[in-house]
Order: sequence, then structure tokens, then C-alpha cells
Amino acid sequence: MIKLYGFSVSNYYNMVKLALLEKGLAFEEVPFYGGTSAEALAISPRGKVPVLQVEQGFINETSVILEYIEQSQQGRPLLPSDPFQRAQVLALAREIELYIELPARACYGEAFFGMKVPDAIKEKTRAELLLGVAALGRHGKFAPYVAGDSLSVADLYFLYSVPLACGVAHKLFGMDLLAEVPQAKALLERLGETPNVQRVAADREAAMPAFMAMVAAKK
Amino acid sequence: MIKLYGFSVSNYYNMVKLALLEKGLAFEEVPFYGGTSAEALAISPRGKVPVLQVEQGFINETSVILEYIEQSQQGRPLLPSDPFQRAQVLALAREIELYIELPARACYGEAFFGMKVPDAIKEKTRAELLLGVAALGRHGKFAPYVAGDSLSVADLYFLYSVPLACGVAHKLFGMDLLAEVPQAKALLERLGETPNVQRVAADREAAMPAFMAMVAAKK
Repeated sequence: MIKLYGFSVSNYYNMVKLALLEKGLAFEEVPFYGGTSAEALAISPRGKVPVLQVEQGFINETSVILEYIEQSQQGRPLLPSDPFQRAQVLALAREIELYIELPARACYGEAFFGMKVPDAIKEKTRAELLLGVAALGRHGKFAPYVAGDSLSVADLYFLYSVPLACGVAHKLFGMDLLAEVPQAKALLERLGETPNVQRVAADREAAMPAFMAMVAAKK
Repeated sequence: MIKLYGFSVSNYYNMVKLALLEKGLAFEEVPFYGGTSAEALAISPRGKVPVLQVEQGFINETSVILEYIEQSQQGRPLLPSDPFQRAQVLALAREIELYIELPARACYGEAFFGMKVPDAIKEKTRAELLLGVAALGRHGKFAPYVAGDSLSVADLYFLYSVPLACGVAHKLFGMDLLAEVPQAKALLERLGETPNVQRVAADREAAMPAFMAMVAAKK
């Protein structure tokens, strides 16, 4: 059976977990926090979460795992089969990752974990988030899903990146990041009402206290 | 015919250009610098380079373009067909992008264009580059190519990311980033001797003076 290594607070972990749930695939969750120990690096070359374990070995990097699942497993498709349409969905997913999730991530420490992020990094994040969300507003279809009329890999990135970026923007910059993209707000609400998304959110809530205690112990 | 939008100084542009050359595909190069004008954003949602134009429309994001070419065009394969082996190659490519190219990119302004990058950002880049190159040393096969015995998408990322990261590390931190990965140095030399890589490099050299003048005019 497929094994998913990671932890329920990780947004990238939850992208893969929701993909597996939406496809109706059986999988086992294996607690794994990554890091730079020899044991962690033997599973994940850069110590990152999540990692998928299949019969042939480990697969790392969320975008790669999602495509692997799509290519090798049965269940509800999360990518179109036509190469051009597939590319449009993947481009939206990549834009959300590179231009929203990664800039926001640079400020998670201050926004969510009581740490201090240097002003230079916050300023860069602020500028990039504004450009990233504007790109999403232009390129996203929201009809009603990010890439069109069905749930796709782009929605996974959207659902588990944009709310965190909104949290960063609200807490550090006093901004409503989606003020000019109401269709994105509506999609977040719609997605939040679906059973698998609620299950992932419940698992996240349940895991949060232990995770916060771990973060506090490391400070 | 496929049209490749971008400019010959862009490392991401050159990844796609080398892929097209290695596959022996006909393509036309269209000068495009991206940016935030309405014209640029109509071609590239976040104003980034490169963009591929095919009969159905534009495709953006280098990783997406490379997979699209692989899926839809003839010529020398740059990804394995087996899903697990394909995932291993793509994971290496993604690691090079996320953990080497992107951290280095945050410092290109100071390393190559006479700008000033804040110390907080330089410190973050330095720490991330060390971890990123260590991951490449562990995960890369270098047998002799990054992902094994044949040229792949991982080599495109390697060839057009690692030398820039080395430049950043040398100029800003006085470090030899590949000191402990001699197999990577050997592969860079080997790749540099191949005809298509030399053609891309010659085009880059030819385009450099005009590009530097454009950068200087913007300062």
C-alpha cells in the first residue's frame, strides 16, 4: 500500500493527502517531520515533507508526487489528459507555489510561530504576494474551480497555500490579500464544505497542539 | 512552428532552448523580456520568461513547458517513461530549482548587476545554498549525468542553475560551492563541450551587452 510520510500540519502534506482521498486510493500515513538527521535525509534528500513510499522506493517533492499519482494510479483525474490543457492546469499550480506559497513561507515564522523575520524579507514577501495574487486573479478561471469546471491539482495548491498567504498578509501587513479576487474567496468557502477537505482540516486541528509544542521546544 | 518567447540571457529560457535543440525540434525565438506591462501579462500571467507558443495558445512556467514538450513532441527523450523513474528525475530537477536556483536568484542583483541585496537575504541564501548543494551531492547520480546514464530534464536545471549559484557563492561569500561535489564540476565541464550547449552559450554571450545596457538604464 502507498505510504505517505509527513505530518498533518504541513500544507504540502495536505495537498497530497487530499489528492489521495479525492482519488479514493488506500494509503497509510507515516509520521515524519523531515529535518537534517541522517535518518530523515535517507528518506527525503533535502529533509522536506511530504514523501511518498511505493514499492520501488521513495518519491519526494509535492509536485512530483502529485504527477506520479496521476500517472500511475486509478481514481478521479486531477489533471486533464490533453497535453495543452494539462499544461494550463500545471502552470496555475506552479504559479501558486512559486509566487504565493514560497514568498508567504518566508514569513510563516513571524506570522504563525512567534519568531522574528527581518524587515528586508518581509518587504520582499509583501511585494511578491501582491504580484502573485494579481497573477492568480488574471490567470485563474474560478469556474468555479481554479483551472475550470473540475477539481484539479491547481485547487490543491490553492487550498493549502492561499489561506496561509492571507494569514501572513493580514498579520504582518494588515492587508486583505483577496480583496480584489472575490471569486477566490468564494472557492475557498466552497472547497471548505467538502467532506475530504473537512477530514484533512480535522486531522490538522488534532495535530496542531503537539506541533506547536515541538516548535516551542526548538526555540 | 513552436515559438519560444524570452531572451538568451535568461537561464530558464536556456533550459527550454537546450531541450528543443537536443530533441532536434524546429522552433522560432521571439524576443520577450516579460515584466508587468499589459502586453507582457497577456503572454505570461506573472510576467516571467520563458513562454512557449503553440497552436492552441501560450504555455508558461519552465517546468511545465519542459513536460509539455516531452509529452507532445518527438525527438530524444529527456524523461524516462516509467512513472517511478520519471519521478526520480523530476524530483532532482525540482530540488535544483527550489533549493539552489531560487535561493541564488535572491542575490543575482548584487552578484551580477551591481545592485545591493540586504544582509538578511544574503544570509538566508548562503544557508539555503549549502543545504541545497549537499542535497544535490546526496541525491544526484552523476553517472555521468545528474539523474543517471543519459541527459535529462535534471541536467537542464543543473547546467543553467548551478553555475549561477556558484557565482553568487563565490562573489558574495567567498565560497567554492562545489568544493565537496567534484562530480558536479566534472559534469559541468562535460556538458560545456557539447555542441548545443556551446550554441546556447554563444547566443547568451552575444545578447549580454544589450541586456546589461538595459539593466543599467533601469537602475
